[in-house]
Amino acid sequence: MTSSLPYSGHFVGREHRFAVRVYFEDTDFSGVVYHASYLRFMERARSDMLSVAGIIQSDAFAAGDGVYAVAELNIKYLRPAHFDDALLIVSTVEQVRAASCLIHQRVMLGDERLTEATVLAAFLSPEGRPRRQPKDWIQKFTPLLPEQNIAS
Amino acid sequence: MTSSLPYSGHFVGREHRFAVRVYFEDTDFSGVVYHASYLRFMERARSDMLSVAGIIQSDAFAAGDGVYAVAELNIKYLRPAHFDDALLIVSTVEQVRAASCLIHQRVMLGDERLTEATVLAAFLSPEGRPRRQPKDWIQKFTPLLPEQNIAS
Amino acid sequence: MTSSLPYSGHFVGREHRFAVRVYFEDTDFSGVVYHASYLRFMERARSDMLSVAGIIQSDAFAAGDGVYAVAELNIKYLRPAHFDDALLIVSTVEQVRAASCLIHQRVMLGDERLTEATVLAAFLSPEGRPRRQPKDWIQKFTPLLPEQNIAS
Amino acid sequence: MTSSLPYSGHFVGREHRFAVRVYFEDTDFSGVVYHASYLRFMERARSDMLSVAGIIQSDAFAAGDGVYAVAELNIKYLRPAHFDDALLIVSTVEQVRAASCLIHQRVMLGDERLTEATVLAAFLSPEGRPRRQPKDWIQKFTPLLPEQNIAS
Repeated sequence: MTSSLPYSGHFVGREHRFAVRVYFEDTDFSGVVYHASYLRFMERARSDMLSVAGIIQSDAFAAGDGVYAVAELNIKYLRPAHFDDALLIVSTVEQVRAASCLIHQRVMLGDERLTEATVLAAFLSPEGRPRRQPKDWIQKFTPLLPEQNIAS
Repeated sequence: MTSSLPYSGHFVGREHRFAVRVYFEDTDFSGVVYHASYLRFMERARSDMLSVAGIIQSDAFAAGDGVYAVAELNIKYLRPAHFDDALLIVSTVEQVRAASCLIHQRVMLGDERLTEATVLAAFLSPEGRPRRQPKDWIQKFTPLLPEQNIAS
Repeated sequence: MTSSLPYSGHFVGREHRFAVRVYFEDTDFSGVVYHASYLRFMERARSDMLSVAGIIQSDAFAAGDGVYAVAELNIKYLRPAHFDDALLIVSTVEQVRAASCLIHQRVMLGDERLTEATVLAAFLSPEGRPRRQPKDWIQKFTPLLPEQNIAS
Repeated sequence: MTSSLPYSGHFVGREHRFAVRVYFEDTDFSGVVYHASYLRFMERARSDMLSVAGIIQSDAFAAGDGVYAVAELNIKYLRPAHFDDALLIVSTVEQVRAASCLIHQRVMLGDERLTEATVLAAFLSPEGRPRRQPKDWIQKFTPLLPEQNIAS
C-alpha cells in the first residue's frame, strides 16, 4: 500500500537521507536550480531529520518555548541541478551546544556532489533571543553525533 | 537626491501603479516568469496600495485586530514576462464590504496586458475567523471606489 | 526498505493523491500557509500526476517540443493550513483538448477541504505560442478522464 | 513626477544602496523574515548594482555568452527583520577576476546590521562551464573596486 503521509526521509547510520524532486518553482530562466532553492531543500531535510529523531519543532513553538533560526550558513555550489532531477539531501549533526546545533548537508545527484553546506541553527525565544533548547532535545541529538563530539 | 526608502508606487486617479523588475527568483527554466510569482507581485502592489491609502496592515496585526488573507483569486495569464522586464502592476479597489474587499489587478509590460486577476481579500481575526475590518479602513477605502459602489 | 527516490504520489481510481508537509518556507508571519504556496504545492502534484501517468514534461522540453504553462487559475481558500501539517493534494483531469488540459485540485487536511482550484494548462512552443501537445500524451490522458469527457 | 519604472538603487561612492520593503512572502510563521529570503533580496541588489554600473546580464544571456551563478555564499544572520520593515541592502564589489567577482553585502535596518554576506559569483557558459566574463564588464567593474584590488 502506498502511503498518503508525506515522506520524511530516513537515517542510514548518522546520515539522514531525504529525496527531493526538482520542480518548476525551484529553477530559474538560466535553466538550472536557483541558488536560494537549495536552502529550502536543506531546511526541509533538517526539519524532517529532527522530526524523525523525535525533536518536534512545532510543539516547542506552540508551547511558547521557541524555535530554531539559521544563525550562519556557508554553502558551495559545485554543479547545477535541473528540472525533474531526483536529488538526495544528506544531513549529519556535527555538534550540539546548549542553544545551538551545527549541521552539515550535501546535495547529491547519484554519486555527484552538487552542493555542500554547513548550517548553524540557534534556538531562539519567542522574543528572538538565544535560549537553551529543551533538555530532551539534547538527549535526542546524542545518538546522531560523531563519537568525538559527545560530551562525557 | 535619491531615496533610500523602498518604492511604494503611486495613485493616478483610482489606479495604484506599482513597478516591478523581474529578477532570477521570479523566473523558471522554461524561460519566463513562474505563474505563482505574479501572485507575489500582486500582493506587494496590494500591500503598498493600502499603505499609500493609509491602511497599515502591520499596525492592525500588532494590535491583535487581525490581518487580510486572500479568500479567492481568479487569474488569467495572457502573455509571458521575462527576466529583467520592467512590469507595471495596476490595481483598483472594486468593492468594500464589512469584512472584505475586492481588488482588480493587471500586470502590464508597456501597453501589453500580460496577466489579469481579481482578488477577494477577507479580514481575519488572529484565530483565523472572518471579522469586520477597522472602521477607519472603510473610510479610507471610499475615495478609491468606483462611484457606483460607494454606499450612500 | 525505505526509498531514496522522491515520492510522486499515486492514483486511486482517477484521483492522484500527493502528500505534502508544510515547512517554514511555505508559511508567513500571520501564522498560516502563504496563499501563493498552494500554487507551488498544486504544481508539484500536477507534475507528478503527469509523470506517474507517463507524460514526461522534461523530455518534451529537452526535445524542443514545448512545455505546459498555466493559462488560467481559479482558487478558493476555505481554511488555512499551518506549519508541519500533513496535507494531501487530490488532483483529477477534467478535460483534455488538443493544446490544453483542465485539472481540478483540492488541498485536504484529513477530511477537511482547505483549498479548491481549477487550473487550465496550455501547451506552448519554445517561442511561447499555443501548440498541439504530443499525440501520445492525449492517449495517456484518456484513462484519467471522467467518462462523459472521453471523445468517441 | 513619480516614476513608473522599477527602482534600481543608487551608488554612494563604491556602495550600492538598494531599499527593500518586507512583504508577506518574505516572512515565515515564526514572525520574522525567512532565512532564504535574504538571498533573494541580495540577488535583486546585485542585479541592479550591475545594471546601474552598465553590466547588463540579460544581454549577455540573450547573446549566448553566459550568465552569472552563485558559486559560494557565506552569510551571518545577526538580527531578524519583520513584516513591513524598510531594509537597505548595501553592496560593494571586493574583487574581480577573469571569470568571477566577489561581492560583499549587508542588510541594514536603520543603523542596525541585520545580515552580512560575501558572495562569489562565477560567470558560466550556457553549458554551465566557467568562462571569462565579457571584457567590457571588467572595465565597468574597475571604478567599483577598492583601490588595492585594481590590477595595474
